Amino acid sequence: LHGFAPMETPAFERIETLSGKYGEEGDKLIFKILKRGEQAATGEVDLALRYDLTVPAMRVFAHRKNELPRPFKRYQIGPVWRADRPGRGRFREFYQCDVDVIGSASLRADVAVILALGAALSAVGLENFVFRLNSRHVIKAMMDAYGVPEPLQAQATTVLDKWDKIGRDGVSAELAELGLADAAVQELCDDLGGDTADAAIRARLQTSEQGRKGLAEVDTVIAHAAPRLAGGSLRFDPLLARGLDYYTGPIYEIFAEGFRGSVGGGGRYDNLAQMFQRESVPVCGGSLGIERILMLLAKDKAAPVPHCDAYITVWDDAALDRALTLADDLRAAGVRAEIDLDGGRLGRQFKTADQRHCRIALVEGPDEQAAGTVVIKNLATGTQTTHTRAGAPRAAAEMLADTD
Amino acid sequence: LHGFAPMETPAFERIETLSGKYGEEGDKLIFKILKRGEQAATGEVDLALRYDLTVPAMRVFAHRKNELPRPFKRYQIGPVWRADRPGRGRFREFYQCDVDVIGSASLRADVAVILALGAALSAVGLENFVFRLNSRHVIKAMMDAYGVPEPLQAQATTVLDKWDKIGRDGVSAELAELGLADAAVQELCDDLGGDTADAAIRARLQTSEQGRKGLAEVDTVIAHAAPRLAGGSLRFDPLLARGLDYYTGPIYEIFAEGFRGSVGGGGRYDNLAQMFQRESVPVCGGSLGIERILMLLAKDKAAPVPHCDAYITVWDDAALDRALTLADDLRAAGVRAEIDLDGGRLGRQFKTADQRHCRIALVEGPDEQAAGTVVIKNLATGTQTTHTRAGAPRAAAEMLADTD
Repeated sequence: LHGFAPMETPAFERIETLSGKYGEEGDKLIFKILKRGEQAATGEVDLALRYDLTVPAMRVFAHRKNELPRPFKRYQIGPVWRADRPGRGRFREFYQCDVDVIGSASLRADVAVILALGAALSAVGLENFVFRLNSRHVIKAMMDAYGVPEPLQAQATTVLDKWDKIGRDGVSAELAELGLADAAVQELCDDLGGDTADAAIRARLQTSEQGRKGLAEVDTVIAHAAPRLAGGSLRFDPLLARGLDYYTGPIYEIFAEGFRGSVGGGGRYDNLAQMFQRESVPVCGGSLGIERILMLLAKDKAAPVPHCDAYITVWDDAALDRALTLADDLRAAGVRAEIDLDGGRLGRQFKTADQRHCRIALVEGPDEQAAGTVVIKNLATGTQTTHTRAGAPRAAAEMLADTD
Repeated sequence: LHGFAPMETPAFERIETLSGKYGEEGDKLIFKILKRGEQAATGEVDLALRYDLTVPAMRVFAHRKNELPRPFKRYQIGPVWRADRPGRGRFREFYQCDVDVIGSASLRADVAVILALGAALSAVGLENFVFRLNSRHVIKAMMDAYGVPEPLQAQATTVLDKWDKIGRDGVSAELAELGLADAAVQELCDDLGGDTADAAIRARLQTSEQGRKGLAEVDTVIAHAAPRLAGGSLRFDPLLARGLDYYTGPIYEIFAEGFRGSVGGGGRYDNLAQMFQRESVPVCGGSLGIERILMLLAKDKAAPVPHCDAYITVWDDAALDRALTLADDLRAAGVRAEIDLDGGRLGRQFKTADQRHCRIALVEGPDEQAAGTVVIKNLATGTQTTHTRAGAPRAAAEMLADTD
């Protein structure tokens, strides 16, 4: 609905496409594929399973850019693989859902990505999700404003990102440990921990050009996207750091009640394309973690998924064609239908129907054949009703619609 | 519609799950994954990408059988990986669509699988497909009837399977080369090459119990399945051998005009489950090759896929919220809609809309705002029409429905 085109990439890439893109820790988590044939014995690798959907997409874009429109808006839902020891809600194979706008430097593109991600979350029924938004420019300007020396800025940013987990005292201690001046630590924590943190930080950011630029980014995105996020919200979080190094502008993570970590995130990364081509291409995009979202949605234990809906009993081998024709007619009426495979008494057949979570069973025995009728049994209630053979498929469809 | 439940398995399995299941040639084509962490340097592998969907499904079934109904009917559509040098219509990563019935020894299950595969082919629009059906019992009985010595039977079967490719003379020469007696070769080729091949072979098969059993299998499946294959057909082919060793009963391959090889196939394999559990479980199933089928369907070069349908021009930054609201309203009316991202003159925005294959563009400039209207431009014809703002989303939806 938001004008993103589907794009799929293969499960594996050449190893050099993925190496060095995810930091040292990320490199260790890449599943690598042994060379084939005579070279297998060398123990060398030449391919690797994709670690995310972003880097392969940029590789494909660089190869195909002349065939693609600008801006190119793509989405992809697919598995990625990380050789982690996964905890709750994490797996070595897991699904990401990405949306990206390639080729636009406008904040409108960031807004478009956030609205598409938000609409997807609303569409699957997630409620009260929160986008926490920041900007790389805000982070840099804050570090400068509080006098954090350049070489310590990356580590200090990571420490600030833990405020929710370790609190003011923890942050204060870790910043001091990094070697930050006591005055800077005190000032920063007073501002961040106070009742008027937002105002205090905004005042600091107004003092530098980069700070004003970062604030303008954040405020523009919030002004246009926040009112349109049905079921969710979007707010400025000057502490949000977001792990990956490649972001250059707005960044955000998505949180939802019931899961400690984020269920998605994204941002602008205007320099990643240059890993695959000379030309710099502005890109922004975001990603949802499908398993975590499913886990949140599945909290109310779901009913067993029916293997089929309508079970057609088979009186004997001579009645097989009759049963197959009834199955055809039910399917033509839109009913998921199957015939009994292994024969035997009706009671045994009803039991199999029940084990397969079918909701109705149909009987067309000798009496019914003589009368031109079909009996439909509601397997939940045990009620049996008799229908004309011609009317049975529609009757079955209506019974199943009623019990949905 | 046929009562098969979706089941997914991971992309990779433990190496020992896949090794030795696909013959010596198959083993060489398995992508193997290097151990991680400190063990990476050993060059040893512990995981492998799945080579088909069948073996992983049997592994999962063996682990989960107590949670699953009997019979268990499953389908799966997903990629598999083979380290081949792929030719036309073949890829190292390709998609299979499998349907299987686990836990029924009845020929009704074979019929159910064939009907589900046939219905899938009809549903995607493939026409005139042909199921060629045989039985492992027919093959064995034929080999015995024509006096092919036991140790040569597997090779002789493979030679017969090439009749379509190399003709009677080729088959005759290769059988002689195997060491078959001249009389046996002559007799076999006379029967198979004659005008009454079907009758001749049936007469031979009637002379042994295994031959009669094989014929009965073939005839039962044809009697029930053939009349129900809309758009396709099913016929006995005593020469069909089907590569994999694990089949034990009916076997078939699916052919379609325009592709030399098969586009799918299947059969009964009652002993495969015993690789993962003690208990023997009767299983039959089939598989479709998605890329080959897509290739056949795509013969009439398809029109470019639109990246979006409705392009909402943005007069200036002050009009951005107005454009975003129009996008919301269009999406609520079921229209794929996007706003212009990069600004500039209307002509430039129309051009971008066109490059993105949008079919209509909407303009809500100062004049339209004053009048409470929206102009919709048909990008194919250039025609512009004016609508009330309130009526524009529905008008756009109707215009797009008309041009579908």
